[in-house]
Amino acid sequence: MLEVEAKAYLPEPERVMTSIIELGGREIYFTVQRDTYYRHPSRDFAVTDEALRIREEEGRSFITYKGPKLDLQTKSREELEVPLVDPQDLGMLLLRLGFEPVAVVEKRRRGYLVGTLEVTIDEVKGLGYFLEVEAKNCDDLEEGKERVLGLMDTLGLDRLERRSYLELLLERGDE
Amino acid sequence: MLEVEAKAYLPEPERVMTSIIELGGREIYFTVQRDTYYRHPSRDFAVTDEALRIREEEGRSFITYKGPKLDLQTKSREELEVPLVDPQDLGMLLLRLGFEPVAVVEKRRRGYLVGTLEVTIDEVKGLGYFLEVEAKNCDDLEEGKERVLGLMDTLGLDRLERRSYLELLLERGDE
Repeated sequence: MLEVEAKAYLPEPERVMTSIIELGGREIYFTVQRDTYYRHPSRDFAVTDEALRIREEEGRSFITYKGPKLDLQTKSREELEVPLVDPQDLGMLLLRLGFEPVAVVEKRRRGYLVGTLEVTIDEVKGLGYFLEVEAKNCDDLEEGKERVLGLMDTLGLDRLERRSYLELLLERGDE
Repeated sequence: MLEVEAKAYLPEPERVMTSIIELGGREIYFTVQRDTYYRHPSRDFAVTDEALRIREEEGRSFITYKGPKLDLQTKSREELEVPLVDPQDLGMLLLRLGFEPVAVVEKRRRGYLVGTLEVTIDEVKGLGYFLEVEAKNCDDLEEGKERVLGLMDTLGLDRLERRSYLELLLERGDE
């Protein structure tokens, strides 16, 4: 089974939120996430296509390792998420081991269900609004892509973005 | 304030436990600890005098970083201990980041209070019995050493050991 997803810039969030409701979509959650990404002391995660982050979300926290993507088509990768009691102290421990924070991604995330598609609207600090559409448990890539891109089209969104928020923030910092 | 401590091999644990009670000592705790020590992916902890371990103890668990010793006389060092929810999964995450387990130290630890001195008797898997005496909050090193070594002497223990259990286990493995 595949997960097919696409992300696009969202210049008019209010208009699109209204459209989603008009299409029969319903809001299923709202959350605030603060992700601190770390640099490895001796590996270049940008080269190895890995990531390490501490997420703080609504009083809970996790440390997450993401392995390299497993193929070129999808975003499939190992994701190992471990709950934490004390994210600040674990961050300090990572510093002592030579890890360094490279960027903090802060976002307000709103989740919707539109038919069988999951839609996420993120307001990312320093980057603006984005909309993501995801078709879960597809058995056909082309059919999944058609549905995902079809909804993007219906919502009038054409500036697709394949880079992660972390990549976008780091590239912005380089400018 | 100083913490003065010494450790010695304990060839006759039963006899010494009896002596401690005869000296007015009382048992204050018993615990079982399982410590997994990790090798850093790009630093030799043996050279930098650091350590990283995950401790599992009576259903609780911690990850602990120990910094280099701060002077030659005492064992003073930074110790950053962070509670964990899921030690196995965090161990797996360390593996993904290139850390490797180097040794597991398993011990049954019994703590006593003898006057103002803390006495610990450890039964360490693969190494045998050890006794540690510690004088906390000393304001005079010589006076602390005298009290600590005085009790060692009273208990008939003369094989002092400065190496950690981890060092002893690793050296034994090299033989």
